Amino acid sequence: MAKYQNLVDQLKRQIQSGIWNSGDKLPSLRKQAKHSGMSLMTVLHAYQLLESQGWIISQARSGYKVAPGLKKQEQTQVAVARTESVDINEFIFDVLQAGTNNSLVNFGFAYPCPDLYPRYHINRALSTAALNMQTSNAFNNLPPGNEQLRSIIAKRYAARGIEISLDEIVITAGALEALNLSLQACTQPGDCVVVESPTFYGALQSLQRLGLKALSVRTDPISGIDLDSLERALQTHDVKACWLMSNHQNPLGFTLSDEKKKQIVELLQRYEVSLIEDDVYSELYEGEEPVSSMKMYDQTGSVMLCSSFSKSLVAGLRIGWVVAGKRSFDIQKLQLMSTLATSAPVQMALVQYLTHRNYESHLKQLRKKLHERKNKMASFLGSLLPDNVNVVNQKGGYFLWLELPQGSDAMLIYREMLQKNVSIAPGKMFDLTEQYRHCIRLNASFELLPERIEALEILATIIIKHINGTLVHKSTNEKLK
Amino acid sequence: MAKYQNLVDQLKRQIQSGIWNSGDKLPSLRKQAKHSGMSLMTVLHAYQLLESQGWIISQARSGYKVAPGLKKQEQTQVAVARTESVDINEFIFDVLQAGTNNSLVNFGFAYPCPDLYPRYHINRALSTAALNMQTSNAFNNLPPGNEQLRSIIAKRYAARGIEISLDEIVITAGALEALNLSLQACTQPGDCVVVESPTFYGALQSLQRLGLKALSVRTDPISGIDLDSLERALQTHDVKACWLMSNHQNPLGFTLSDEKKKQIVELLQRYEVSLIEDDVYSELYEGEEPVSSMKMYDQTGSVMLCSSFSKSLVAGLRIGWVVAGKRSFDIQKLQLMSTLATSAPVQMALVQYLTHRNYESHLKQLRKKLHERKNKMASFLGSLLPDNVNVVNQKGGYFLWLELPQGSDAMLIYREMLQKNVSIAPGKMFDLTEQYRHCIRLNASFELLPERIEALEILATIIIKHINGTLVHKSTNEKLK
Repeated sequence: MAKYQNLVDQLKRQIQSGIWNSGDKLPSLRKQAKHSGMSLMTVLHAYQLLESQGWIISQARSGYKVAPGLKKQEQTQVAVARTESVDINEFIFDVLQAGTNNSLVNFGFAYPCPDLYPRYHINRALSTAALNMQTSNAFNNLPPGNEQLRSIIAKRYAARGIEISLDEIVITAGALEALNLSLQACTQPGDCVVVESPTFYGALQSLQRLGLKALSVRTDPISGIDLDSLERALQTHDVKACWLMSNHQNPLGFTLSDEKKKQIVELLQRYEVSLIEDDVYSELYEGEEPVSSMKMYDQTGSVMLCSSFSKSLVAGLRIGWVVAGKRSFDIQKLQLMSTLATSAPVQMALVQYLTHRNYESHLKQLRKKLHERKNKMASFLGSLLPDNVNVVNQKGGYFLWLELPQGSDAMLIYREMLQKNVSIAPGKMFDLTEQYRHCIRLNASFELLPERIEALEILATIIIKHINGTLVHKSTNEKLK
Repeated sequence: MAKYQNLVDQLKRQIQSGIWNSGDKLPSLRKQAKHSGMSLMTVLHAYQLLESQGWIISQARSGYKVAPGLKKQEQTQVAVARTESVDINEFIFDVLQAGTNNSLVNFGFAYPCPDLYPRYHINRALSTAALNMQTSNAFNNLPPGNEQLRSIIAKRYAARGIEISLDEIVITAGALEALNLSLQACTQPGDCVVVESPTFYGALQSLQRLGLKALSVRTDPISGIDLDSLERALQTHDVKACWLMSNHQNPLGFTLSDEKKKQIVELLQRYEVSLIEDDVYSELYEGEEPVSSMKMYDQTGSVMLCSSFSKSLVAGLRIGWVVAGKRSFDIQKLQLMSTLATSAPVQMALVQYLTHRNYESHLKQLRKKLHERKNKMASFLGSLLPDNVNVVNQKGGYFLWLELPQGSDAMLIYREMLQKNVSIAPGKMFDLTEQYRHCIRLNASFELLPERIEALEILATIIIKHINGTLVHKSTNEKLK
């Protein structure tokens, strides 16, 4: 596909998904070229094509804006069908792509700050593993994956009091493959799946890709998913699976109490619903006491516990796993059919690192730094923002969740910040409805260097401007009534 | 899941899929333990459980056999629905797992003999790439994947006269992910997809996994897919995609003529059907002249050309690609939703190897050796087998296709060979019907060491015994009529 066509498609989808509304001014040709890495000519070509198709209009000396009368596609409140949720993906794809721009101050980033990775030791481990690679390693590599690695993972769970057999563990291409295979192992297209609201956007994408319907259940920023609502969902719908995050939930940050974890597992088992436990942040607890897992309370083998090393050790290797309970064999077959197997040398590199380096000591350091950085950023933001912006700062993890006054539009703030070369994660990414449009997730794993301090000051200024604008606008409207 | 339960499930499925029929003697406890790597106690536990459930019966001093009256599940001739083809997967999974046994003489193997890989140089390249890995590499790694690698792939196509833009190429976790993403990009569950008969079993698995219906089109061992049958399929069904292999087809080995490649592309474009071109063997041509690709004749961007380095350089890295035409962006989004991205260091290792080592000289050697070994094995087999066994030996690639007389049952031969610690690929793996039950695919990429010579002699003996048994049995039956 020609480059300009990508940009054309991208802008059309952004308009359909409400990132750009009628009358909004588009980035100038020069800015668009800079952000997209395309040439001025390519961008001009794209804009002209969009203009010829009536999507945008050009204005003498003031660039291009979105044509009047264009409306974003409607979204449903509860169910997701294949076509209804397409815009979520386009939008998230755009946000993720924007995040690969290295010059960005990236508070929208999903991973911990890369300076927290033991890069040197990981590189050495991979290099050593590479040199020791035997031909047979490549072929003893079918699902469930490298046995040494599975054994190390099982032992680490055992140390946390979670008894898991080797046969249950399947190594995957990152946690995302683990989650996708788990979901596929317990559902058929058209089935209902419960997710949190708000939830990790990857869950919504997976549901859409597999033709599943989402049942979003109300989730509190402090106490997590609402048990009564969850039970009501199970009573009123034929739910096949439930995809939840029990520790340092993305985007809210809460950790479920042990009691609540147990209650959820029992409730789901009562209704014979499979539980997919997305537990990628479990190593990032605060203090000395590890967090528990819903899998601990699994009596029937129907909890699939998914995780990876990407948030706690290093990103980009694409190694995760699922503790698959009674679905282990089904998941192995699905993997064999979709990606065949996980890269052999990368699994060996992790074995090398985990055997010869002190992972626990790295984790201790990592937890301490994340804790310090998050608190520093939270208190700095607190000093900049007015009282009607709630900065939710939970124990553990590295996300802050900002709740602006109802009626605020974080999409506007997202777009304005992007023009200032700063990314944030707007609440809209985490739900199919508009109910978190006033919220923002910030990655607080970064050291507060001067450019980041400046970026936060800009963010605060823009938030305040928007809140005031919204409130003024509202009161004007009220006067007019 | 407990280990014995895996074995129980495996045997049940093997019985259902007709690998074991009523009255067949199962491997002894000792043999089963040896092949499966399980303890004698585990195997005993599994057999006892199967016995208690009525699947098998034990006989004093002669082990276990399949209980009378158990029937394999019926298979349909043309369509694949989700449940109808489950047994294909179970069966293939078992064959692939059996192949990981290192003590096996593995003529059922899917990859070239590992002694043909430049293992030392690959290991060095991966080691160097690992040491040079920067944090940013992990994050500039979202779809479509490493730009240098895509550029090298594009240049190699250009050298073969196939013009491809960088933007069209998406790096994937092996060719299998490329094929799966391509299929998903152009179909919806329930759609019809044309495949060859016989075809690569992975195609059948992918169709099943995605809830698609297979239309198997007659395919000749010499000239390839039958164009009239293909057009009839397009006329009579609402076909959305066609999955074909144009060069050194698996399992038959044929290469389509340029004229035929062109005709297929034109025909499919006439019916607006997407073409997924599985081209993983294209580097393994014989002689000096590279083979062409159907993608060359693509006028509408609707051919998705999938390939990898696994057959020509090294297996186990899990790096492939798709030249995706107009679907490039869709495929990138699907990848982002399913496995997120491809492992960064492994892509860098390939860049390192391809930039600093002489890949072309390796390929030249590889082609020469494969050619020699295949011809040697074909003529040795020819000297052992009677005239009514047809050894199909095509130019290029490394597979031989054996056609036994109609009525022969290669499944029996497969099972008997497995007991002798030799694997072959029975024709049944490559089709949903029984029409290739008399065929065998052999991997001819191995050097004929004494143990392999012996294994081929055993194979020939067993084939002859079976043919004679079948013919005697037939004539007995005929006499009885």
